[in-house]
Amino acid sequence: MSKPIGVFDSGLGGLTVVFNLQKSFPGKEIVYFGDTARLPYGNKSPETIRNFARQNTKFLLSFQPEMVVVACHTVSALALKQLKAEFPLPIIGVLSPAVKAALAKTGNGRIGIIGTIATVKSNSYPAEIKKANPKIRVYGLACPLFVPLVEEGLFSGPLTETAIAHYLKPLKEKKIGTLILGCTHYPLLKTAIAGFMGPKVTLVDPSEEVMPEIALYLTPPPSPLPTGGEGTRGKEGGLRIYLSDITPNFRKVAASFLKKRLPRLEKVNVENL
Amino acid sequence: MSKPIGVFDSGLGGLTVVFNLQKSFPGKEIVYFGDTARLPYGNKSPETIRNFARQNTKFLLSFQPEMVVVACHTVSALALKQLKAEFPLPIIGVLSPAVKAALAKTGNGRIGIIGTIATVKSNSYPAEIKKANPKIRVYGLACPLFVPLVEEGLFSGPLTETAIAHYLKPLKEKKIGTLILGCTHYPLLKTAIAGFMGPKVTLVDPSEEVMPEIALYLTPPPSPLPTGGEGTRGKEGGLRIYLSDITPNFRKVAASFLKKRLPRLEKVNVENL
Repeated sequence: MSKPIGVFDSGLGGLTVVFNLQKSFPGKEIVYFGDTARLPYGNKSPETIRNFARQNTKFLLSFQPEMVVVACHTVSALALKQLKAEFPLPIIGVLSPAVKAALAKTGNGRIGIIGTIATVKSNSYPAEIKKANPKIRVYGLACPLFVPLVEEGLFSGPLTETAIAHYLKPLKEKKIGTLILGCTHYPLLKTAIAGFMGPKVTLVDPSEEVMPEIALYLTPPPSPLPTGGEGTRGKEGGLRIYLSDITPNFRKVAASFLKKRLPRLEKVNVENL
Repeated sequence: MSKPIGVFDSGLGGLTVVFNLQKSFPGKEIVYFGDTARLPYGNKSPETIRNFARQNTKFLLSFQPEMVVVACHTVSALALKQLKAEFPLPIIGVLSPAVKAALAKTGNGRIGIIGTIATVKSNSYPAEIKKANPKIRVYGLACPLFVPLVEEGLFSGPLTETAIAHYLKPLKEKKIGTLILGCTHYPLLKTAIAGFMGPKVTLVDPSEEVMPEIALYLTPPPSPLPTGGEGTRGKEGGLRIYLSDITPNFRKVAASFLKKRLPRLEKVNVENL
């Protein structure tokens, strides 16, 4: 039996990555850990985020995964280098694939990146974009209300539209051509964000863009996927979900990320790992 | 030297209680713990909240306080009984004083209570109100966006007004006469909430209502306060602030709660207590 893919996030947002994993690599086993007892990470300090990331990775290692996917942008931005140095297996973050996609898709050389306070403060996205092409203009912006909006299931409607206008107006004025959705929750606001930004702005969804990088590390390498819908898929691989807390609205919100019924949720304590 | 008052909250919201403590009992020493590494509590499970509350109380006990004030409504609603049973000193929650005040102030017997998901789900407020007067109609409502709005410093403006209308419209339609602000962050939205609810609705701010109960346990008993403003106050007592994480925007947001300059912040780990 092939080894599973380990995925972790501060909460349930990383299930957007799981959704795309199941679509791209059907049959692959996945072990997911969501640190729901300590979420959100986005407004915490780099030191605390690195400590949490190390504990989460240690937990996933107990399943002997062939790689660990860091679905969380905050951790990808702040702790990926340290995790790669510390652990002897491929650690895949969402930042680099998102940057590559944004660079490939940018028309006018003006890229926006939205994320948590910690992700934006880390300056990791602009630094990586500028390293590849110093001429690109990058505009980073924290949108702290977006995560609670998604957790509330408010993907559209007046409150969501007001929040999107509140945060994204400055980016619209900067005439960006590409916008990186730099937080695992944001893809659920894609329609509303696209509606506000208009058809000239291309949205980059890192939970999709990370798939080719994951494919590089899969053993055996994935076979080309048949085109078509759900009907053409093969047998689905197992998904195990572990959480540091079974939070009251996890099932409801998680189902909207995963777009299907959830497996059994298991509670674990990773604080002393 | 008299013993300090220990105060804890999931984050910095409890500083609304500290603000009122310093106003009501000038000269009193205060030790504050904010569990900023693990906030928010409001969407976590009762078991996890109780575990965190126990660790926070243990930390404050190291300062030999004369009492511990649980500034957090979520903890007051879910863990107060257990903390009182476990620890041999007065443990004061914000729930009972808020209920007493709401009962005293209610005109039409229709009371609203807003708070976090966990506080509202616990049903603690309605249960305590009904115990005192079964005829009162109680309407509980979770407003998960309010905390991040306050953390963003958005006390007014279109986004805050849209969020308030989104959540509070059903309570307005129920024609409540009294509204308990059942979360330490909410008093900072008092003006905006009052503007939406209109002059017929009396707001109950538990961070003020808890003061008489605290006074009962003070040694020596507090002397009557002179009326008047800041100028009439005596020497101010010391305030020590401990946090489980020094979060990026703590200073900015905390200052708006405390309405003055903060003391030095010290980081502590309570996870293994």
